Amino acid sequence: MPDLGVVTTQFFTCHEPPHELKLKSGERLGPITIAYETYGQLNADKSNAILVFHSLTSDAHAAGYHEGDKKPGWWNTMIGPGKAFDTDKYFVICANVLGGCKGSTGPASTNPKTGRPYGLSFPVITVEDMVVVQKQLIDHLGISTLLNVAGGSMGGLMALEWSIKYPESLRSCIAIATNTRHTAQQIALHEVARRAIMSDPDWENGDYYGKSIPARGMAVARMIGHITYMSEKSMDEKFGRKLMKKEKLGYDFSTDFEVESYLNYRGESFVQRFDANSYLYLSKALDYFDITAEKTSLTEAFAPAKCPFLVISFSSDWLYPPYQSKQMVKALKANDLDVSAILIDSSYGHDAFLIEVENQSKVVSHFLQRFI
Amino acid sequence: MPDLGVVTTQFFTCHEPPHELKLKSGERLGPITIAYETYGQLNADKSNAILVFHSLTSDAHAAGYHEGDKKPGWWNTMIGPGKAFDTDKYFVICANVLGGCKGSTGPASTNPKTGRPYGLSFPVITVEDMVVVQKQLIDHLGISTLLNVAGGSMGGLMALEWSIKYPESLRSCIAIATNTRHTAQQIALHEVARRAIMSDPDWENGDYYGKSIPARGMAVARMIGHITYMSEKSMDEKFGRKLMKKEKLGYDFSTDFEVESYLNYRGESFVQRFDANSYLYLSKALDYFDITAEKTSLTEAFAPAKCPFLVISFSSDWLYPPYQSKQMVKALKANDLDVSAILIDSSYGHDAFLIEVENQSKVVSHFLQRFI
Repeated sequence: MPDLGVVTTQFFTCHEPPHELKLKSGERLGPITIAYETYGQLNADKSNAILVFHSLTSDAHAAGYHEGDKKPGWWNTMIGPGKAFDTDKYFVICANVLGGCKGSTGPASTNPKTGRPYGLSFPVITVEDMVVVQKQLIDHLGISTLLNVAGGSMGGLMALEWSIKYPESLRSCIAIATNTRHTAQQIALHEVARRAIMSDPDWENGDYYGKSIPARGMAVARMIGHITYMSEKSMDEKFGRKLMKKEKLGYDFSTDFEVESYLNYRGESFVQRFDANSYLYLSKALDYFDITAEKTSLTEAFAPAKCPFLVISFSSDWLYPPYQSKQMVKALKANDLDVSAILIDSSYGHDAFLIEVENQSKVVSHFLQRFI
Repeated sequence: MPDLGVVTTQFFTCHEPPHELKLKSGERLGPITIAYETYGQLNADKSNAILVFHSLTSDAHAAGYHEGDKKPGWWNTMIGPGKAFDTDKYFVICANVLGGCKGSTGPASTNPKTGRPYGLSFPVITVEDMVVVQKQLIDHLGISTLLNVAGGSMGGLMALEWSIKYPESLRSCIAIATNTRHTAQQIALHEVARRAIMSDPDWENGDYYGKSIPARGMAVARMIGHITYMSEKSMDEKFGRKLMKKEKLGYDFSTDFEVESYLNYRGESFVQRFDANSYLYLSKALDYFDITAEKTSLTEAFAPAKCPFLVISFSSDWLYPPYQSKQMVKALKANDLDVSAILIDSSYGHDAFLIEVENQSKVVSHFLQRFI
């Protein structure tokens, strides 16, 4: 299928003082800039808009190509003419989250009060705060009702949050490889990653901008991440015990196995493209996520939701295991909601939401057609 | 059941120059000291000896109490009068592995050639090397045939290695929560832990003895370990989203959740009791472990084995998943060996081999009685 051509990131600023956003924590933040991209055309009655949410370390560039780039956006396989999120039919929007580091306001942004990067003076944010900010963008674009919100992983948390926070202006929701509350293991994995970053002397309590970045801690954090994104099986199929070029064990502490080399490469390339403090803030927001927090049950938590849901999970995903999607589906159904649940058999682990294009495209495009 | 009383660690030194041990790598090492403990009495014909192998960060102190200690040895629940490894019947031996840091020769030991700790000049060792050294101890004790070798996790790798390396002098083997070759995911998890340690500036290329220890890297490594030792379910049952005393989210980067506090505590206490370089060397030895390395199949790898086997795995163990034990059992059976395989239903993850005492005791004591 053809790709979108060259796309550009746009920017929108809101919550200019004295109209700062009151965050969930009680802190106030503003102004807030949101980086976003749009694909396809908004129709005359503005009824074909879909808001797509990205995962932890992704950004607003979901599809098409930036001028001069060889690699397309992170969900280019799913967004474009004739694709699952068909840009011939839908107007697709993707925005970098609050707290991110790809154009939206985050800890690396300049604090207008000091003229220096926020660093740790950036307030701790929640998934709800991220969603509130994106609602401002949708309002700014003049869209009163979204045809759909969709996202995988962190993006799935945001889609669920949107469905209960803004049910009146939403016609459908797609939650992929996600959960309704972070579990102890999900929190634990993030805590180790945060600890790795904060243990790096170059982190300097978050005040490293313009100096050395905490590259070693970031690399370790990312390596942990990558292990959780793959399944035990996909790791074994991809790498097994394959050795590096020398084809024999080194009997030293250089890299012996391909899987080590892969993780080291992934760790090091991440350092160049992501801000360490953003990783801390976003992972914290995810760990705070619990739609049942002030409720007596998951069913009650979903009570405000109104629209049909599509819930997708993947058999080998151990970071957001299928049983968590099942619990979600059960609670949605207990609210008499229209729920389609798909468990896709895949060995790709959590990464499947970015890799299993064919199966996912079918169910997504079929689901979306009901609302056009 | 009564515990053993006060026990003491003993030491045995072998491979004095010029009789250094030729390691798998081709390097030579000596002298080698082995710290070990024994429980129960060796009978007159020396036919009741059982050699128990410890896991990655454990030691020779498997049972009973050291003078003044409140905590017993690491497998005290399984070793003692009337227990699974019944010291009224058996003479149980446990030795700290080569490369360890609890009395046996390892990277923290003094290199006789320099008068300083080996550090990274210690040669990279293998599980086979560890086993060869313990065979010296068994010979020294005048035991020609062991009634049994047993171990969980790393100890299980050693038991399997022993079964194919010294089949003539072994009457039975118990392999618990272990594997015949480290998989990509097992290697990956170790590589991240090593990277965390080696990224700590205090590691100083392994030459940190007498200076600051690489405490931050060690803590991160141990935190990763602890996540892999528990199951997703046991973590959720033990911690869930329980908050620390303040009982509300802090909206800062201090510790919010009990699971974070637990991991931080575990990480920090580990730093005090283990040597960082030992962690590097032992994890490397485990990653190198592959009994099929010079064979065409797992069945062929087990061809030298002769004794009956008991293979125990745990349903929720995702570090050494039950399917790996199944493969082992299949290959052992293909060699017409007498194999008992038990899958214990447990939510404790890999830690189950230390926690599931009741079920494990039954199968172990029943299995061992065949050889008395």
